[in-house]
Amino acid sequence: MPQPLNAAFAATSAPPVMEARRWLEGVSFAPERPLINVSQAAPIDPPPEGLRAAIAEAALSDPQAHLYGPVLGLPALRAQIAQDWSAQYGGRIAPEQVAITQGCNQAFCAALASLAGPGDAVILPTPWYFNHKMWLDMAGVETVPLAPGPGLLPDPEEAAAKITARTRAIVLVSPNNPGGVEYPASLLRAFADLARRHKIALIVDETYRDFDSRDGAPHALFDDPDWDETLIQLYSFSKAYRLTGHRVGAILSSASRLAEIEKFLDTVAICPNQLGQIGALWGMRNLAEWRAGERLEILARRAAMAEGIKALADWELLGCGAYFAYVTHPDPRPAPEFARALVHEAAILMLPGTMFMPETDPAGARQMRIAFANIDTAGIARMLARLAALRAKP
Amino acid sequence: MPQPLNAAFAATSAPPVMEARRWLEGVSFAPERPLINVSQAAPIDPPPEGLRAAIAEAALSDPQAHLYGPVLGLPALRAQIAQDWSAQYGGRIAPEQVAITQGCNQAFCAALASLAGPGDAVILPTPWYFNHKMWLDMAGVETVPLAPGPGLLPDPEEAAAKITARTRAIVLVSPNNPGGVEYPASLLRAFADLARRHKIALIVDETYRDFDSRDGAPHALFDDPDWDETLIQLYSFSKAYRLTGHRVGAILSSASRLAEIEKFLDTVAICPNQLGQIGALWGMRNLAEWRAGERLEILARRAAMAEGIKALADWELLGCGAYFAYVTHPDPRPAPEFARALVHEAAILMLPGTMFMPETDPAGARQMRIAFANIDTAGIARMLARLAALRAKP
Repeated sequence: MPQPLNAAFAATSAPPVMEARRWLEGVSFAPERPLINVSQAAPIDPPPEGLRAAIAEAALSDPQAHLYGPVLGLPALRAQIAQDWSAQYGGRIAPEQVAITQGCNQAFCAALASLAGPGDAVILPTPWYFNHKMWLDMAGVETVPLAPGPGLLPDPEEAAAKITARTRAIVLVSPNNPGGVEYPASLLRAFADLARRHKIALIVDETYRDFDSRDGAPHALFDDPDWDETLIQLYSFSKAYRLTGHRVGAILSSASRLAEIEKFLDTVAICPNQLGQIGALWGMRNLAEWRAGERLEILARRAAMAEGIKALADWELLGCGAYFAYVTHPDPRPAPEFARALVHEAAILMLPGTMFMPETDPAGARQMRIAFANIDTAGIARMLARLAALRAKP
Repeated sequence: MPQPLNAAFAATSAPPVMEARRWLEGVSFAPERPLINVSQAAPIDPPPEGLRAAIAEAALSDPQAHLYGPVLGLPALRAQIAQDWSAQYGGRIAPEQVAITQGCNQAFCAALASLAGPGDAVILPTPWYFNHKMWLDMAGVETVPLAPGPGLLPDPEEAAAKITARTRAIVLVSPNNPGGVEYPASLLRAFADLARRHKIALIVDETYRDFDSRDGAPHALFDDPDWDETLIQLYSFSKAYRLTGHRVGAILSSASRLAEIEKFLDTVAICPNQLGQIGALWGMRNLAEWRAGERLEILARRAAMAEGIKALADWELLGCGAYFAYVTHPDPRPAPEFARALVHEAAILMLPGTMFMPETDPAGARQMRIAFANIDTAGIARMLARLAALRAKP
């Protein structure tokens, strides 16, 4: 253990995806039964050729693509988001209300840092996205878990009961990671109203927005001309455009909050990298149709996943959407043990529910997250067959 | 002012480079006397064509260049740094002791976060690099300023007197930003010994290492087989390879500390962007000769700068090296006022000393930083002529 060590770091868990990867160390898989890795939500193919060519062209011919840009991102990308979002959500979003970040994780860290410091509290529904919890831990901000109601949906009234003078924000992820659930527009509205009444922020992470099964805008929060007094929306270009390796995300908030967030981004990033932003902008302008096809493919995988789990005896589907199925498993072992055993017994890597909630929450031991977006419907069928065979053992 | 606001953010100053840029708003410059901008240390030309082509080729043909990579960076880049550093510094550096970050600012934030939290203290010599101070402020870590002795050099004995039970680290930048001073190897050794005795960390930011006027290794700290118990070295690819827009930096530390830092980087970055890392690696492998030429050019500008300031009546050169000259100015107005006036009176943008030290330090009002690396020797002569003319006014 290195000395000195920030005490908050000692209390922060290691990255779950890294930990799961270590379960694979020294394990070999038979060629006829390769590993099925459903531990991480990430495209495994590069973006379309046009986007790659646009990045390559900028690298070769645009000197600015190699130099510092504005802290809050390329003006053209901020403007494009403002324009597209205004049309898609039906509200009024100005370029000054958009900032670009080095990925959506950084968007969360930057937004949160502007809101809360040590001793403050943030309400985080369970199952949660573990990087959100890790940042809150490292920042010394108390995480107040909010257990879900039916359908994995958080309850605004239960959230209201947890708000204290120390509460700075409520964080929602929709479509949800890890739960896969798409929050109804009315639920998001109820949370926004709650946050407004208490003068706290509502952060809505819409990383998986482009794979929502519902047509049209997923909510009407931008309708409110004063949306930016309460709402902080986060977005990622990683999934929609397969740009995970480029680290491009966005924050939509008030210009005055972005001026505070600029302090954080200037210090942690100086600016988002230029080629990633150029790729994201090219994607927004040219890939609407391709993106729609990607969405349909993910929705087909989702349907295969949902149907398949329902057909598996003793597994229960709690949520399915975005890139994820969230399930209860029938194994007598607790989820972390079962997850490690699955590597050996079924050549499948998935994350246990315990990684998405407090250790003290007994639900985690019964739950698993299956990040199905990386495998096609045939792969999903193979995985389900392995799970079924597992159960058939004496 | 957005509500709620993290109180630490309210107490953190806005990015100085942004503030200085605002001084230009609404100001027009005569075509025969364009603005000379010496406010920021940044290359204004793109990297050499070979490096740009390497990035473009990866964007087109390497699928991995678009996907998530390891949190701590590309293994090949970590190994290359370990190999080159071991040769250059004459010590033993393993790839496991190297992490890649989204720029050197992030390297500082990540290293610091692993060391110190709210209530802890860090010793920072003045004049300091303002982003270091901003991060400490946002993190709730107390900055203990250490005023320089002769030659802008910090004094280890004075530092020793400031160490308390709350001290977690001493931060040095060599060659220095903003002071331009190259710290003698013996001084760095004295600081390392001091840090080791007190079981605190010594952070040495060597962003400008490739422009050091001294031949050979600038210090022997890596000689110590246990260097990683005390030393944390930070490096940037931004200046040496003109990759500012790609955001690539590095941390050299113990593997155990990097495991802690991995929590921060996983949450704030997930991974450094791939194309920037690919470019950095290509540069390390192919641009040694070009880099040597760049260094000579900077050293020529440095010489022009140093001679020129010495020839200016009533200006005093306090330090000159890396990308910077650090000077006292003769104007009766305090530096912030003089700096703003210079935009109008001389079409020059430079930063006042007050941006590099506590408000309570009277030295700041008399000092200025001139980031000369962006202008060639002819440009430096033009700038000096404007300063001389300014002084000649009644």
